[in-house]
Order: sequence, then structure tokens, then C-alpha cells
Amino acid sequence: MLENLKQQVLEANLALPKYGLVTFTWGNVSGFDKESGLVVIKPSGVPYEKLKAEDLVVVDLDGNVVEGDLNPSSDTPTHIVLYREFPGIGGVVHTHSPWATSWAQAGKPVHALGTTQADYFYGTVPCTRKMTEEEIEGAYELETGNVIVETFNDIDPLQIPSVLVHSHAPFNWGKDPAEAVHNAVVLEEVAKMNYHAYQINPDIGPMDQKLLDKHYLRKHGANAYYGQKK
Amino acid sequence: MLENLKQQVLEANLALPKYGLVTFTWGNVSGFDKESGLVVIKPSGVPYEKLKAEDLVVVDLDGNVVEGDLNPSSDTPTHIVLYREFPGIGGVVHTHSPWATSWAQAGKPVHALGTTQADYFYGTVPCTRKMTEEEIEGAYELETGNVIVETFNDIDPLQIPSVLVHSHAPFNWGKDPAEAVHNAVVLEEVAKMNYHAYQINPDIGPMDQKLLDKHYLRKHGANAYYGQKK
Amino acid sequence: MLENLKQQVLEANLALPKYGLVTFTWGNVSGFDKESGLVVIKPSGVPYEKLKAEDLVVVDLDGNVVEGDLNPSSDTPTHIVLYREFPGIGGVVHTHSPWATSWAQAGKPVHALGTTQADYFYGTVPCTRKMTEEEIEGAYELETGNVIVETFNDIDPLQIPSVLVHSHAPFNWGKDPAEAVHNAVVLEEVAKMNYHAYQINPDIGPMDQKLLDKHYLRKHGANAYYGQKK
Amino acid sequence: MLENLKQQVLEANLALPKYGLVTFTWGNVSGFDKESGLVVIKPSGVPYEKLKAEDLVVVDLDGNVVEGDLNPSSDTPTHIVLYREFPGIGGVVHTHSPWATSWAQAGKPVHALGTTQADYFYGTVPCTRKMTEEEIEGAYELETGNVIVETFNDIDPLQIPSVLVHSHAPFNWGKDPAEAVHNAVVLEEVAKMNYHAYQINPDIGPMDQKLLDKHYLRKHGANAYYGQKK
Repeated sequence: MLENLKQQVLEANLALPKYGLVTFTWGNVSGFDKESGLVVIKPSGVPYEKLKAEDLVVVDLDGNVVEGDLNPSSDTPTHIVLYREFPGIGGVVHTHSPWATSWAQAGKPVHALGTTQADYFYGTVPCTRKMTEEEIEGAYELETGNVIVETFNDIDPLQIPSVLVHSHAPFNWGKDPAEAVHNAVVLEEVAKMNYHAYQINPDIGPMDQKLLDKHYLRKHGANAYYGQKK
Repeated sequence: MLENLKQQVLEANLALPKYGLVTFTWGNVSGFDKESGLVVIKPSGVPYEKLKAEDLVVVDLDGNVVEGDLNPSSDTPTHIVLYREFPGIGGVVHTHSPWATSWAQAGKPVHALGTTQADYFYGTVPCTRKMTEEEIEGAYELETGNVIVETFNDIDPLQIPSVLVHSHAPFNWGKDPAEAVHNAVVLEEVAKMNYHAYQINPDIGPMDQKLLDKHYLRKHGANAYYGQKK
Repeated sequence: MLENLKQQVLEANLALPKYGLVTFTWGNVSGFDKESGLVVIKPSGVPYEKLKAEDLVVVDLDGNVVEGDLNPSSDTPTHIVLYREFPGIGGVVHTHSPWATSWAQAGKPVHALGTTQADYFYGTVPCTRKMTEEEIEGAYELETGNVIVETFNDIDPLQIPSVLVHSHAPFNWGKDPAEAVHNAVVLEEVAKMNYHAYQINPDIGPMDQKLLDKHYLRKHGANAYYGQKK
Repeated sequence: MLENLKQQVLEANLALPKYGLVTFTWGNVSGFDKESGLVVIKPSGVPYEKLKAEDLVVVDLDGNVVEGDLNPSSDTPTHIVLYREFPGIGGVVHTHSPWATSWAQAGKPVHALGTTQADYFYGTVPCTRKMTEEEIEGAYELETGNVIVETFNDIDPLQIPSVLVHSHAPFNWGKDPAEAVHNAVVLEEVAKMNYHAYQINPDIGPMDQKLLDKHYLRKHGANAYYGQKK
């Protein structure tokens, strides 16, 4: 079942080590099939170099395993919350990529300081609040999803497709697994560049709003003119 | 047409990922044919690993597409301004290379602190002023070229073949596409070394002018003695 | 003798350059055979690319060479102290991996700031005190082991499988040589991320204890649920 | 002539890009034949990927080309001063390796903060004073050698086989070309680690002298016990 989506999820998982986003098994990608309402996700703790399409696990939006012999990623409940609450997304990526994770550990958001970020994110990539003891000791991975959703109360997740979870690491999403990985790579690059930009000049504020608009909108929306007509 | 220049532009584009200057499609190289007044440039949004010589687009100095089925780089108007205003250049490179872009995001120039920079740049690589709202909302990419030209009001672009565009990223040029890429690599290296040098010693000023003269002039101009006689 | 352990120790040594943990011969891995009480260790100063299983040296817990034509690693007495004093460990790794060594040179511990560290270390990776002149001029490598053991007076070495030796570099251990290398890789990653996190936000304290418990215990102990059932 | 030394010098030059010490042609290695008093050195500006043994240039200690069709490295006079003034050295390496060059640009020495440096350098790697205008406008490359020699007035160049030339970059040496490259790699590693160690803890002083003695002397001199008996 869902052979096409499994192939996409497999390739997206294998892209994580290729782009230097993961050490060992520190990351996972899932994909969502809107029609069936099912999620295809990496099994827990399986090394990328051994991962095959048939190892992927299919779960429903209640977290029940529908197909697969292996345990799904321990972060599956977080992915599910995002698919439920962020309509229009079709892929979710979690990594401990080092630059983004450094910002998450510092508890600080990644502001838009330049056009690299503006080309993909329509503003600041936020950092969640710290989770409460009750959330941590309760349904932790589900509550991780909930605190992300809470953080996006006033933010459109389709315009800001990444988040830093406080004291933890980034989650990223997109219209499909490949786009979610793409956004994870971009986040890592801008997290790195922002780190250095602030060290050079601690007083820089966010970039000009008009410049942010220009770059975001020349790649997204009705009047986009970057790239080739599809 | 311009098959030789197309080959040079193709190779120069492929050098960008080879030297670690680009992520995804974040960069483009063009070349200028002085005789015909035509520019050969990368198409917009095409991945480097799929790029072929026949994909390259030929435009004139008014921005009209003369040959090619694909849209030229969205940064084409910036390239054209540089070819028009900086006589003697034959290649332009734009990247979001991370160290140079960090300085651009910080809005700070890259001063000559050592002989590595002096071997290629006869002084500071400047950072443009911020662009105005009118410039951003107008012919943005053309105005990007104009603000670069304004920045070089008192600077010889053949002696300082790179610039940082504020809140954006570097542009580099040279007598041909290969030299422009070469200068882009040098800028990235000196941007990295300057960052670390200032962190070690925030009080260092620019290098001695005589040392700058010595290194620049032993590689450039009538009395150069570096390398082999041609 | 101990052919299986030799193969494990060989592979673990070869993993050090693969993971970027060593330059030249700056590292060594040993393995411990509980039954015989013997240690298999890398010979001193032999380049990794030339290392073969038959080059490995077998020593007893008094430091006597039991098998092998080459000198064992000059750090052998340190390894032996750890096998004697930390029951349950079966592999020891010493490297000069650059991020962990930078913290060792700074004389500072690596606190748990995020879940990456919590997944492997149940708290802070400590830095030893400086060694005394007597210790340095005496049986130096053995005393290096002793100062590590002293540092773990109140710490369970199975829960914190790494240490920074002051003005020197890290030692890591695990239930076998492969796990010890795994922990060395994790230490290097968290040392890097902590460095950047503190530069972003010098005021961050250690992570929430409940979050540390949650991540450590979902991977370790009776109620662990990460990965696949074995 | 000097075919064996040429082979050593070729391999040492090719090791520079392999170890990530050079960009483009920013480096050169020479070797010295004590019997004949001749120096074999890289030609100026020739890319490493095209370099062959027959391209190497043989010069005498007065700087006269004895064999070779190409111009020798423009830094040849610096190498010659070092061979003349530092008896016992048989190889010299110049690079613009980024971490060491950052310290040179900052005008600061690389102090011994840990055992990594102590294993190779018996103390601080010094930075020269700035060169005077007269020196720069005179026989610049020869004067570069002279200012290095002046810096080693009270330092044994066999015990500290590297130097940072102010506002420029490192020079390294050794008993042969391979050892000189080895020392260049070590300098780059300790320059990187010192940078990070000082950022973590700006107040750290040099390492304990006894620990420096211990590590240097366990690898060098009559009582060395690191490695295998030769």
C-alpha cells in the first residue's frame, strides 16, 4: 500500500545524511496521504544505510499501526499532531541538525536577517516555550506537537515551515517529504549564517520588511516569477 | 551561437557546488561576449546537476532573450547593469556563500587584514547601503545592480572584483566567468578568516598599506612577478 | 587469541578517522574481555590506514604484554585503570577530537543543554581537575586514569560514559568498543552544539531535569521504548 | 638530479590539498639536500592537480636556479633564509591555512593550551612583529625570512617548528618535507582548538609547564617512549 509515498519517504530519509543533517539515527521523515488519511514514517532506531522501503511503517491519525513489522519512530505522535493541525502539509522532518539545534538549545528564534531566509520563510522561525513538567511526564511526544501548534497560533505554518523546539531540536514540514527536507536544509543554512552575522554585528535588527516581502513573494504565490513555468 | 562562451559559463556554474559556494540553486554565473554585446546566463531555478550548455540563456544588454527556451536567472538585470557599467569585466557570479553572506547580513565590509586578500583585492570589499523601499518595490534586480554601481563610485571594480549587497549576499566578477568564480572563492575564504581574526582580536585595524601594495602588485599590473610568464 | 574482540577493536579504531574524530594517530581504542581479564589495544603510533588485526596488542590488567610484537598505546595504563575501576565497561576510546578537546583545554564541563545529550548522557560530562606535578612526573598515564576515577566519585560511569581530561582531551567508554566510539561521536557533536548555544545565549542554564529524565530513560533502562525490541 | 628529494617534495606538495591546508595555489613546499646545499621547490602559481616532479625547480642557497624551466615559488627567498639560519631542517612549508592565518591576521601567537600542541611544539608558536616599510619595499621575501629568524632569537626552531608571519600566514618546517607538512597540519588543528578554547574561557592561561614537558619529551629526545622503536 502507498508504494509511491513510501518511495518518497525513503528518498527523503536518505537525503538527511546526504545533506549532513543527521548523525547516526537522529532524524526521521514522514509523508501524509491525504486521501486515505494515513502516514508513512521511518521505523525507530534503524540506521539510514540499512533502511528500505518495506521497513517503513504506516500509521493512521490515531497512531495505530496499519502496516509494518517495526516500531514507528518514537516521534510519531508529534508528526501526527502536525498533520492534523496544519492542513495542507504532506511531509514532516525532524532532525538534530547542529546549527538549528544550537539555536533550540539557546531557546532563541531564527530571525530573518537576509534574503536567503526570505526566499523560503516569510519571517522569523520561532522557538517554542519550554514544555511543562506535566507535558513532559504525560504524553510527551504528543505534547511536543501541541506546543508547536500553540507556537503557531498567530503564524501560518505554510509560510513558516519550521520550528525550533526549546532545549530539543527543529521540526520542518512541506507540501511533501522532499519539500520538508528542502526546508530543513534551508533552516540549517540560515541558522548558521545568522549565528555568524550576530557575532559580527550584535546590533543588527531584522531585515527590511519590503525586502522580505519581495523575496518571499517572488518565489511564492500568484505573482511569483522565480524559476521555470510549470 | 557563442558555443565557446556557453561552455565557459557552464563550467563556471558547475564550479560553484564544487567549491562549496552554493546550496541548491542559490547562485548563478554569466559570461559576456564583448563583440556581440550578448550575455550567456544560467536559467532560473535549474539544479546544477542537471544543467547543460543548451539550457543556458542568451540575452542582450536590454534584457531581451535572444536564444533559449528557459527563463534566465531572476538576477539577470543585476548582471546586465554590471556589464554595462564596469567596462572590462567578462563574467559575473552571484552566490549565497555562507561566510560572505554572513557579512552581508551583518551589513559590514570585509577589510583587508592580510596578504590572502591583498593578493586579489586592492583593499576593502565594500557592503552596499540598504536599498530603499522604492528600489525594492520597483525594478528590484536592476536597482540591485544600480546600488552596486553607486557603491563603486570611488572604487575601481577591476581592483575590487566583489561586493556584498546589504541583507542579501555577494556578487563577484572578473575578466571571464572562471576568474569571477575564482574571486568568489577568495572572498569566501577571506570572509571566513576575517570573522575569526576579529573574534581573536577585535582591535586589529586594516593591514599595512605598503604590505597591501606589495602583495597586490606582485600579482597584478606591469611589474607583477608571481606565477609563470605567459 | 581473542580474535573476535580483535576484530571489534580494529573496526572501532578504523571508525575514528571515518567519523572525523582523529588527525594522524591521535586516538586509540581498546576492548576488554571480561572472562580472561585481558585488554586488546591499538599499538602506539601506527597509522590507521596501515592498522591490521594482527598489529593489535594484548595486555593484562597489570599492563604486561601477553601477545603482540609492537608497543601498546602509550595511553594503555589509563585504559587499564578504567577497566579495573568501572565495572561493566568493555571498550575505551581516547581521541583529540577538536570540539571536545577545546572544552578540555578550556577546563570546562559539557553541560546537558538539550535532548541530544540527554539521549546518551544522564547529565553533565565532567572535566577533571588539573593533575598535580607529582602525578605528571610520576606514573603519568596511570595517574590520568586515577584522576578520571576521582572525578567519577559521585557519578555513575555507565550513565556518563565520557570525561574531559583537563588541558588534554576526552576519554569515552561503553559496553563494547563500538559503543565507546558511538559515545565519542555524540560527545563531539554536543560539545560543538553547546559551544554555539552558549555563544548565542550565555545565560542559558542546564536543561529541565524532567526533560533530561524523559530522554535518557526512553532510551535506557527497564522502561525504554526507543528503537526496536531486541 | 636529486630525484629522491624531488619525489618527497612532490608528495609533500600534494599533501597540502589532501589535508585541506590550501585553496588554489596558496602554498608551497621545499626540501633541502644538505650534501649539495641545494633546494627543491614548487614552481610559482602551478596548480597542485597538474604538478609533476619534473616541474620542480632546483635552486642554490644564493637563489640561483640550478635546474628547471619554470619560475620557482615567489616565496623562495624566505625558504632559503630558513635553510641557512635554522641548521638541521630539511623541509619548509608555507600555506594560508585558514585557522593559522586567522591568528596571523590577528597578530597573536598560538599558546600551548593542551597536550595536542605539547606533543609537537615545546611551547608557544610565535607571531612575528609587523614588517617595516623598508623591509616590505626592499627584498620583501628575503626580509620575511629575516623577521622569522629574528623572532626565533630566543627560541629553538627544532622545538617550535612553525611561525605566524604578522598580517600574512604560517611557515612551518621539519627534518624533511613530510615532517614539515605534518607540523603544518598540527598547527592548523591547534590554532582551531585554541580559538574555541579561548571563546569558551577567555581567562585560561598556558598549560602547566610540567605537563608540557611530559608530552613533548615522551615524543622527542633521548627518553621518548611514544610510538615504535625504529
